[in-house]
Amino acid sequence: MKKTNNDEASDEQLAHLYQGLHQVCSAIVNSTSEDELFPRICEAVVNSGLFRLAWIGMVEDSTDQVRIVAQFGAGSEYLDSLSISTNPGSKFSRGPTGTAIREGRAVWCQDFQSDPTTEPWHERGMRFGWRSSAALPLFRDGRAVGTLTLYAHTTNAFTEQAQKLLLATARDVDQALKLFSIEILKDKALEDLKNSFKRLHRSWLQTVEMTMAITDARDPYTSGHERRVAEIAVAIANEMGLDTGTIEGIRVSGYLHDLGKIGVPAEILTRPGRLSEPEFELVKTHSERGYKILKEVDFPWPVAEVAYQHHERLDGSGYPRGLKGDEILLEARIMAVADVVESMASHRPYRAGLGIERALTEIERGRGTAYAPTVADTCMALFREKGFRIPD
Amino acid sequence: MKKTNNDEASDEQLAHLYQGLHQVCSAIVNSTSEDELFPRICEAVVNSGLFRLAWIGMVEDSTDQVRIVAQFGAGSEYLDSLSISTNPGSKFSRGPTGTAIREGRAVWCQDFQSDPTTEPWHERGMRFGWRSSAALPLFRDGRAVGTLTLYAHTTNAFTEQAQKLLLATARDVDQALKLFSIEILKDKALEDLKNSFKRLHRSWLQTVEMTMAITDARDPYTSGHERRVAEIAVAIANEMGLDTGTIEGIRVSGYLHDLGKIGVPAEILTRPGRLSEPEFELVKTHSERGYKILKEVDFPWPVAEVAYQHHERLDGSGYPRGLKGDEILLEARIMAVADVVESMASHRPYRAGLGIERALTEIERGRGTAYAPTVADTCMALFREKGFRIPD
Repeated sequence: MKKTNNDEASDEQLAHLYQGLHQVCSAIVNSTSEDELFPRICEAVVNSGLFRLAWIGMVEDSTDQVRIVAQFGAGSEYLDSLSISTNPGSKFSRGPTGTAIREGRAVWCQDFQSDPTTEPWHERGMRFGWRSSAALPLFRDGRAVGTLTLYAHTTNAFTEQAQKLLLATARDVDQALKLFSIEILKDKALEDLKNSFKRLHRSWLQTVEMTMAITDARDPYTSGHERRVAEIAVAIANEMGLDTGTIEGIRVSGYLHDLGKIGVPAEILTRPGRLSEPEFELVKTHSERGYKILKEVDFPWPVAEVAYQHHERLDGSGYPRGLKGDEILLEARIMAVADVVESMASHRPYRAGLGIERALTEIERGRGTAYAPTVADTCMALFREKGFRIPD
Repeated sequence: MKKTNNDEASDEQLAHLYQGLHQVCSAIVNSTSEDELFPRICEAVVNSGLFRLAWIGMVEDSTDQVRIVAQFGAGSEYLDSLSISTNPGSKFSRGPTGTAIREGRAVWCQDFQSDPTTEPWHERGMRFGWRSSAALPLFRDGRAVGTLTLYAHTTNAFTEQAQKLLLATARDVDQALKLFSIEILKDKALEDLKNSFKRLHRSWLQTVEMTMAITDARDPYTSGHERRVAEIAVAIANEMGLDTGTIEGIRVSGYLHDLGKIGVPAEILTRPGRLSEPEFELVKTHSERGYKILKEVDFPWPVAEVAYQHHERLDGSGYPRGLKGDEILLEARIMAVADVVESMASHRPYRAGLGIERALTEIERGRGTAYAPTVADTCMALFREKGFRIPD
């Protein structure tokens, strides 16, 4: 029974077909991967009512075999160990699916049982009642990579209208495959960039640490001072609830706050005795020297400014500029306290370490005058109540 | 004339409707932005044949006014200076569109001319022959942000089936809006990460330069040596056609190849006279010292190894390990030539600069014995034929 596309039955069928295709399209819109999409397509095509079985197969490049990746409908056992090849030498390559992939065009087999190209599947198809079959190639990057293959219980199931609609649907599926590919590439690009960023970030932090180690090495008596100051400052910042970015900036600032000492003669830095007034003035230049070196680097934090300000005191009694209160960055107020605590607690060439208690007493004494109250309180609580210790 | 959804006309209409909706869906699949999608939707809806005019409006949050962003169909002049509000206080808010957005539900106005809610538009609608109108809310993040609004020339244009299909389509549009939003967010995330990467990369390179400057400052007589060696090495690498990544590695290696001099007393480094044998042996330790410091940093290039090898010579006559031929990295072979050229051409405390010609004569003399032939040839061609000069 040949059907035309403008009799009554055809309108009803067409409505069904459109409904099915709308479902396919809706599935495309609502899917984010082939694994999600393909079963939905097969189901929607069968739900259109015109076809009994629908499956999607993809070519395995290594074997030329078509692998079934999704299926839906009555008689799906038909597919059990079904052999379909795209290799032109194989007799299993001349049916609709093999031809559709090899030639990159839709194949409409309107009379399955009398078509010589479907001969290898006649017996099996008879058992399931196939009278028509079609295979629509699916394209990726312009290459047929698989098919949507359909079976119906009537001959001539593929009217001109049905063919047009099925072809339009196949192009929508192609578009989906393309979008999924782009999506995968984009996700991969983002993932790769994230990893590169992590590696660069680590390399950069290690470079900062290397720079710290180089300058630190000039004065063996204060070895590790910068790292320990950084650890104390980070602990205070953490306790104060500062955000991750600011805390990272404090770590880097701690590592580099004494960088300017590179400009002060090592003989003066490491001298065990008391420094003369001019010598001490020379040591005090390290804040500004550090600032001048560090400001050449576009850090995302005020690293140079912290180096400049870490000897400033809340009441204006610090150096080099005698800044007061809010003129001093929060990061520098934290660094000042961490620096004093580390310096007093550690051994120096001219004295043994005074111990953490003496250091904290100094912070307590200067709370609100030399040192910012919140920073001082947080520091004291860290050591006295939370069991924090200066790391080795 | 009330239509049911199972008479003949209904099947035909339904097929049309499905066709239109399939087009909408296809438009969604094939669009990548709202600007692209919205006109296609309006066109597809009108092409279904059931509606005369379709438009999409989005709420402007600042004014509560609905702004028309796409339209298609006969009588689109109806929309000229049409006022629709979502503000409940406005009489222009009670029609299908305003209600759909305010209440987040589809509004089916089956008899436009006798509906009191459409009163402000009765006269205008009469001129265009509107008998039915519907507004389907479009949602983003669960909030109605706009509508798809339709007009028909018959009353009761929205059969139960048509309503169902239009609603399904509106949900597909919602999904598209969601996907577009995700896409925009992803693109933005990628863009942001790219920018962060660039900033970090610059900051990192500046940190490397800072480290170079710090160590360079210890020996004023060779000031700028590292940077100039890097420039010569990069020029050779460029001329040899090495890839961008390798060339960046050569730049960084050039900046840091003498870092180990930090461990050699400045008095020896800067002494004008000839060094004693033990003093020279001490200077020669800078290769390995540099290596030991630099290997702590996970550079994406063999920066530490280049520092270690930059005094090795092709024939094994170099130091510290007496490596030969392929045992020496290409980057180190390039650095060796650049280092010799810069050192000979520049002034030293114990002699005036020998000039570039003398330096090139040395490279020529050692070509194939001390220096890799390709590197030596490229270097000589650069200076003698391509007009390259050592930068200041």
